[in-house]
Formats: sequence, structure tokens, C-alpha cells
Amino acid sequence: MTKDRLFYLALGGADEVGMNTYVYGYGPPGRERLIVVDLGVAFPDMESTPGVDLIFADISWLAERADRIEAIFITHGHEDHVGALGHLWPQLRAAVFTRTFTGHIARRKIEEQGLDGNVVKVVRPWPETVPVGPFQVGFAPVSHSIPESSALIIDTPGGRIAHTGDFKLDPTPVVGEAFDEAFWKGIGDQGVHVLTCDSTNVFSPLPGRSEASIEAEIRNLAAAASGTFAATTFASNVARVKTLASAGVAAGRSVCLLGRAMRRMVEDSVMTGILAEFPKTISPDEAKSVPRENLMLLVTGSQGEGRAASAALSRGKYQGLELSEGDTFLFSSKTIPGNERAVLRVVNALAKKGVDVIDDTSNLYHVSGHANRPDLDRMHNLLRPNIVLPMHGECRHLKEHARVAAKNGIASLVAGNGAIVDLGSKVPKVTDHVEPGRIYLDGKVLIGALDGVVRNRTRMAMNGHAAVTLILEGDETDGGPWVDLTGLPGTGVSGKSLGAVLEKELDRHLQRSAALGASDDDGLDDKLSDELRGVVRRICDAEIGKRPEVTVLISRSN
Amino acid sequence: MTKDRLFYLALGGADEVGMNTYVYGYGPPGRERLIVVDLGVAFPDMESTPGVDLIFADISWLAERADRIEAIFITHGHEDHVGALGHLWPQLRAAVFTRTFTGHIARRKIEEQGLDGNVVKVVRPWPETVPVGPFQVGFAPVSHSIPESSALIIDTPGGRIAHTGDFKLDPTPVVGEAFDEAFWKGIGDQGVHVLTCDSTNVFSPLPGRSEASIEAEIRNLAAAASGTFAATTFASNVARVKTLASAGVAAGRSVCLLGRAMRRMVEDSVMTGILAEFPKTISPDEAKSVPRENLMLLVTGSQGEGRAASAALSRGKYQGLELSEGDTFLFSSKTIPGNERAVLRVVNALAKKGVDVIDDTSNLYHVSGHANRPDLDRMHNLLRPNIVLPMHGECRHLKEHARVAAKNGIASLVAGNGAIVDLGSKVPKVTDHVEPGRIYLDGKVLIGALDGVVRNRTRMAMNGHAAVTLILEGDETDGGPWVDLTGLPGTGVSGKSLGAVLEKELDRHLQRSAALGASDDDGLDDKLSDELRGVVRRICDAEIGKRPEVTVLISRSN
Repeated sequence: MTKDRLFYLALGGADEVGMNTYVYGYGPPGRERLIVVDLGVAFPDMESTPGVDLIFADISWLAERADRIEAIFITHGHEDHVGALGHLWPQLRAAVFTRTFTGHIARRKIEEQGLDGNVVKVVRPWPETVPVGPFQVGFAPVSHSIPESSALIIDTPGGRIAHTGDFKLDPTPVVGEAFDEAFWKGIGDQGVHVLTCDSTNVFSPLPGRSEASIEAEIRNLAAAASGTFAATTFASNVARVKTLASAGVAAGRSVCLLGRAMRRMVEDSVMTGILAEFPKTISPDEAKSVPRENLMLLVTGSQGEGRAASAALSRGKYQGLELSEGDTFLFSSKTIPGNERAVLRVVNALAKKGVDVIDDTSNLYHVSGHANRPDLDRMHNLLRPNIVLPMHGECRHLKEHARVAAKNGIASLVAGNGAIVDLGSKVPKVTDHVEPGRIYLDGKVLIGALDGVVRNRTRMAMNGHAAVTLILEGDETDGGPWVDLTGLPGTGVSGKSLGAVLEKELDRHLQRSAALGASDDDGLDDKLSDELRGVVRRICDAEIGKRPEVTVLISRSN
Repeated sequence: MTKDRLFYLALGGADEVGMNTYVYGYGPPGRERLIVVDLGVAFPDMESTPGVDLIFADISWLAERADRIEAIFITHGHEDHVGALGHLWPQLRAAVFTRTFTGHIARRKIEEQGLDGNVVKVVRPWPETVPVGPFQVGFAPVSHSIPESSALIIDTPGGRIAHTGDFKLDPTPVVGEAFDEAFWKGIGDQGVHVLTCDSTNVFSPLPGRSEASIEAEIRNLAAAASGTFAATTFASNVARVKTLASAGVAAGRSVCLLGRAMRRMVEDSVMTGILAEFPKTISPDEAKSVPRENLMLLVTGSQGEGRAASAALSRGKYQGLELSEGDTFLFSSKTIPGNERAVLRVVNALAKKGVDVIDDTSNLYHVSGHANRPDLDRMHNLLRPNIVLPMHGECRHLKEHARVAAKNGIASLVAGNGAIVDLGSKVPKVTDHVEPGRIYLDGKVLIGALDGVVRNRTRMAMNGHAAVTLILEGDETDGGPWVDLTGLPGTGVSGKSLGAVLEKELDRHLQRSAALGASDDDGLDDKLSDELRGVVRRICDAEIGKRPEVTVLISRSN
């Protein structure tokens, strides 16, 4: 008889911020029963993933073991935890457990892909638990920046695991459950084997601040603003949206929500009972007739997203509304690394209109939703686990979090994506490796990160593209090669048309090429294509200092 | 007789950080004599300018008036002030005045373009001045993050202008001239009409810190590091390079410079007498046999540049040297907005190797080279000009700087790129507009930002590319259309080959197209190309959810 084992595996989220995808297994090695925690996305950028819509963890390891998956648990409704659910569910086909508000979002993700939303099962918070195979799983409320965020308490025959999800220690979160120190101490007293723990803010040295701590400053700002008061934040930060709207109302302003996500998230919150009261809002049409000093706009696009309401307002009108000299625009948000340029584009466009922009540098109007370093210390010490497994972060975050654990006298291990960590003793060990990877949603198609599709697009972006057409009749060319250039200058250093120079040189090459056969025997056409590609690159390098991507199309005329 | 006028014009640098290009004019309207201050570059990014090498201000307005240009003045040797000199000088052909160290760099920029470096004339610092037409111009030393940075004191019949260039108020700059408060007060006492002033750090609320203030912390770090101590900074920050090297030596370490810019800048500094003493350095080959705890590496690539020494060390070996577990890597630098992802890539790759990375968040190991808000106040009050013209910054910086001036009771004006500002009275007025623009160095070719070349590359990066070839014999097609796809997935939602689906649909379209004529009369081929492009986009949208860029090549066979 083989001894059962308990393991942890991150397929995403343990080498990046985002794309959270975790697996726990229990059972005889090779036949463990599995649960999946979160199925999140990462977001593409022009530098590494141009044209890509969303990035998912490669779950082929899980898909090959789909018959062993007991269930999927989603900790909260942020895209980096639930965004891949609809796209990846068909490969897993297991029941999805969530709390009410998250369930609302998860169900929509499933239904958007034409699947049955009833696979999502709503669970009440701890002490209710779900028995799935060898696991017993409960949702323990934590505070974060979206309602009903939950840690998972996972009981297994190998011991108890506390999987924090995203969390902070907030005694006054404005919306939703406060951090309940007594509860977590009680969990700790019962004995915790493993704490799998958020590492996002491990480099923030001061204790985290409460959501309620910024209310007064936001109220002051809304009251002091002379014109329209506009503010943006993540729509899913319902507490913040409420704080902003209440500040507007307190300053005698009518509140108008701009952007689909903002309207939908408020609707969802009211529908699921998260928000008992939200100030009455007015439509953009109604807002047009409200005097500026009595208007508040709550808008999407805190990360400078080109199609969101913020960017639209910075460029001109949005739904008939416009900002101008003397208005105020507040970023009640933090710029995610990589979005700086996009955010500054919006800031400067607003500044040019004369709008007074208040960005995120003052720290007065935004607090983070993650536990800072002293908060991590506190969580370690409340739970006193045998093992801390740092998750949610780049390598540098996980390493630093492991150092924090070491200082607290707790065993720890930096386990990146793909490392299978055996949790059978008080010291975690990596026993196997799964090749971690990324899958791109590219339009309607899933493609592998290493398929070369995106690499070729990036090369065209850097080097441009040349298409060469050649018609062969026997071993004669009919009319010489044609060249069509995209994304390349029309004239090079010779001052002549680049296309004409290329066609002349290609023709000259063809006169002498031994690869110009009467038929494509021995792959002569491939050889000729390679030669012509070489000619185009060499001439372009000399003329314009670039070596473009080249497509050669050789047609044989009958 | 028309009254002479004095004007200011920014062609670059007054709507962005970088690309500094300023013009002053004096004389009868339309016939003013001109001086140019700085000819800098901005740097491209994958998001807006893929494949571009450098970005220059569009100087066509100046080029059309080249006969009126008296001289070009370069304030200091940073790329965003001198980087465009070699590329743009042929359009201006005026004498270039600089101080010694800057002249060394400027001459190289000129000579790299095959021009005569003798157009660069070296000037000693104030009180020496250069008379050029109606202007008398002197270089007044200021502290910054490169040696011999200078403000320009420009005397004109319309009054005195102080053009700060990049500057900070540093009483102990480690290398070069300290900020001389008495000198600047003296200039103020003589009367200053206009202060054209750096705005880069206007949002930094605390007084700037001296270069000397970080020496002790860097020494502590070099001494405490257990393995190799590696550090990166901008090579041109000669004071910092010296501080870092001295800290290494004090900790008993041999210093090895890695990266061409680092070696060259130290050589230039010694050659021009800027650095009387620099610790003896060892070659990478010698460094290989030095014990880790006795080695210091001073490396290029503080912004995560993929080809620099830092990035190479993060990936593996560089010139035979390698970092490993227990080594320390210091970023003695600030990440420029937009470079965050690249820097984090280096940080995480080093962290994976077990290297202890110290980034820029602590503020202990880096100080800025620009005047903070209280320093700007001090400069305003020392010079007490009639007018402050904010420069060096995005719109938000210039606006904030104008607010600072207003608080100090000084007239000001936010003049973005292209605004011609009349300085004939104590209140500045915008009287004309030049269309500002950007020119790209794209390989060997200068292209206009609006030429569409880069736009087409960006589109290919987002949407991929399809080449369609069609051979016509009379009004018959020979063999049907061929399709070649680049940067697109091979299979769409139908599960069939995308190329095959496209060829079939194109063929079907051709059977019915009225544009399929026996010759290209009436532009039938253009019409047919448009139709085929439409078919490709429609089918791709249905199959893969993308609408690619399409090149159609129609060949008529004889």
C-alpha cells in the first residue's frame, strides 16, 4: 500500500502578479484527488503580447487529470482570480464553488462562453463547509478590495490548509466583513498545517490602512472642488465606489456613473444585497442639465484603458458629458506597473483641458487591498502554521515573504509555478515539476505562448513586412518579381523607391540563381524563397537599416 | 520701422520629459535672428513606436529659417539634450557652443554622422560669454547628474534670460561645481527678465538631497555584502559612478566596469579632467580570478535595457562573469516611467538566481538630479525674474510649475511645444503657433510620426498579416488565389486550416465578382483587391476574431 500524500501546485500566480491558478492534491501518489483554487487571467501588453486579449495559465496538466478534479473554488471576483473560468472550464468540467457575490460574477463568466451557469454553486461563509473527496472546504471572510473575498480553510487527512486568497486586515472596510482577529486566532488555536499566503505587498513596510481612513479626505475634496468632481477607481472596489458617491452627495452633488463596469458592479452589489444603500444616481442625459458644481461623475478607466470612460473624457465628450477648466479629476487608485504611460496620457490630456488632476502620489485618496509586511507578520502569528507557502507574486515577492516567515520561525519554501510541493511533513519539499506555461486568448482562438504566432507579430512590429510574388513559367519568370511593403519607409538612403530597388535586385538575382528550375523538384522553390528572402533583407539593411519579415509567394503558371 | 521683438519657442520638451529643443528669437517680426538651445531625443516604446530607434522634435520650422540661426547651445551631455545633434545638424548648419565635457560628447555625436566635429566650439564658464548676433550667451555652472551641466545666461536687447537647463541645488555634488547661491543672487540683483526653468521634479514636495548624502549608505552596503557587489546607475552620472567605485575600494573590492557606456564615460571624464582620480579598475578577464567577496561590478542597464550588462547578467554570463546565490545587486537609480516592466524582468531574473536585489524603493541609494519644488521656489526667489517660463515636462508639470510661480508672485505662462511666446513686456503672451511634431529615426531613415509607417507596423502587431496572390490570365484566374499568413493562428473556430478556408472563400468570391475583368481598365484590379481584402477580413473575423492587415498582389500573366 502506497502512503497517501498531500501536495500544493501553482500553475499561475507564483511567478507573476495575476493569473492565479492553484491546485491541491491528496491521495496515493499519481492518483491524488484534486481541487483547483481560482482560475485567473493576466493582462497582455504591447511589448510582449501585442494583439492578445487575455493570458491564462497553461492547464494541460490539469486537463489530462480532469477525472480526478473534485471541484473548483473561487476566492473572490477579481479578474486575476476568476477571469479564465469561462474559457478554461470546458477542459475541467468540475463543480465551481463560490460565495454569493463572487458566484454572480462566476456565473456570468461561464454563461458568456455559452455554458450552463448552474455549475456554479453558492456556499455560505464558514462554518459552512463543502465536502469534496478527501477535502472539506470552507469560505472564511477576509477584507480586500471587492466584496465577499474569502480565504479557504481546507481540511484534509494530511492536515489543515489556510489559503488566504487576496486579503488585508481591515477592521473598518466600509462594505462587507471586517477582519475578525478573534476568529483567525481561533483557527490558529485549532492547529494549521499550511498557510498559503498572499505576498503582493510584502515590500510595503508600514501596516496597511483601512478603507475607512480615506473617507474624510475624499469628502473634503468633493466639497472643495469648484466645478464638476470626477473620480475613477476599480469598479469592483464597491466600498470605494460607495465612499466616493457618498462624498459627492454630502457635497450636494448628483452622482452619475459612467462606464459599463461601473454601472454593472453597482447593480450587482445591490442585487446580491452587498449594498443595502447606494446614493440615487442620475443618467448621463440628466447629468447634462445639472450645474457643474452640483455634479459628480464616477467613471471607469483608472488604469488609463483607451476605451474606458476616463480616457474618453480626457480626449473629449463621453455620452454627451465633457470636463473643462476648473473641474477636478481624482484617481482614487494605484497605477499597476506597466500602465504608467497609459495613465499619464489621460492625466496630461485632462491637464491640457484645464482640469485639476489629483493622481495617486499623495496616498491620501487610496489604500491598498493587500496585507503589508507587518500584516503578514500578524497573520503568521495568529495562525502559527507549520509551513508558510508564499503565493501571489513575482519571484522577488515570494523570496521576501519566505524571509518574513523565517524571521517568524516558520518553515517556508519559494515554490514557483510548476513546482509540486509535498506537504507530508513539517518541512515542505519540491518533489516534481510540471512545465508551467501560458495560453493566449487571441481573438476567438486559444494559442500557446510558444507557438510563434505572437513572436511573428512582434517581429513585424519591429521590422516591417515585405511580400514578394514571383510567377514562374517553366524556368522563366513572367514579368519579374513583385514587391509589396507594409510598415516600411518608401525611400532608403539611395533616394530611390525602396520597392523599385528591391524588384531590380531580385530580378538580377533570379537571372543568376541555380535554384530557378523548370519545376519544384528537390524543393527548388523553397531554396529560391530562401534566396529571395535573403536578397530582400540584405538590400533593406543597406537601404533603410532594417531586416523585414519576408513572405515569398512563388506561383507556377501553366 | 517695425519694433524688434524677443520670443521663446519650444519645439520639444514642453509637452514631454525629454526631446528638449528650444528656440529664442530677437529682431523685427518675421526676420528675428535665432539661437537654438539643446537638440535632444526622446526614446521609443513598443506601444506607440515599435521598431523606432530614436525620436526627435520636428525642426522643419527651424530648417526653413536656417539662414537666421546664429548658433546652437548645448546645456549638458544627456541624450535628451544632445542626442539629436548629429542627426539634425545638417538641417541647421550653425556653430555649436558647449563646455568642455559636453563638447566631447557633442563632437562624437557630430562625427558619428560623418560630419566635421570642428563645428563644436568649447566655451569656458561664466563670466566668459559668446556674442552671436543680438545675443550674448554665457554658461553658468549648475549641479545636475552629469558633469559640467550649465544654465545659459542669455543677454538680449529685450532683457536677460536665464535658461536653467536641467539643474538641482547641490552644495556637495561629489564631482564638479557646487550650487553657488551667492552667484545666482548676484545674477538676480542685476535683473532677470525671464527665467526659463526645469519643471521635472515640481511634484516632489521636499527639498532635493545632495549627491554626497548617499555616500555613507552605499559604503555600508558594499562593506556588508557577502558575495560579489554589483551596482548599476546611468553611466553619465560620473559622480555616482565614482561614489560606487570608491565604496567598493573602501570595502576591499577590485572594481570592474561592465558595458561600453560605463567604460567610455569614465575614460571621457578622466580625459577631460573632470575626474582627477578614479579607482584603478580591472578587466573582466582579471575579475574572473578575484574572490567574490573582493569584487565589485559597475554595470550599465539601470533601466532594464535588454542588451545592457545588467540584463545580460540577469540571464546568464556577461564577458565570462556571472552572479549567483549570495551576491548583491544594487539599482542606484530611478526607474523612468514606462521602463517598469523591463526593470522588473531583470530584478526577478536576478532574484531567481538567489541574488539579493536592492531596488530604488528605499531612496537610500539614489538622489535625483532635478530641483524639487522648494528648490524651484528658491531659484525663483534668488533671480526674482519678471516672468517664469516652465519647461522640461509634460503639461501637468508645466501647469504645476506655473502655480508655483504664481504663489511666488511672478508672471508665468504654460507654453507647450509650438507656442511662440512674445517676451516684449512683463506679461508673456502667445502670439503664434508652430505645428509641433515628431520625427523618427527608423533604422537609417528619418520618417514623420504621421507618415503611417509605424501605424502600419502597430496594426500588424495587433492584427497579423495576410498576403493574397492572384494570377489573372485574361479574366480567368490561374490556379486560384494563394494566401500566406504571418502572425495568425493556423486554425480557427471551424477547426479547419485558416489558409485553406480563406483560399476557398476567395475562390468562391472570384467566381462571382464583377471586378474580374480581362484587363485592369477602370482600375478593376484595385476594386478586386478591395473586395478580396474584405473577404479575408470577414472570414478571419468569423474564424479567429481578428481582422488582419491584408496585402493583395494581382499579377497578370501574358
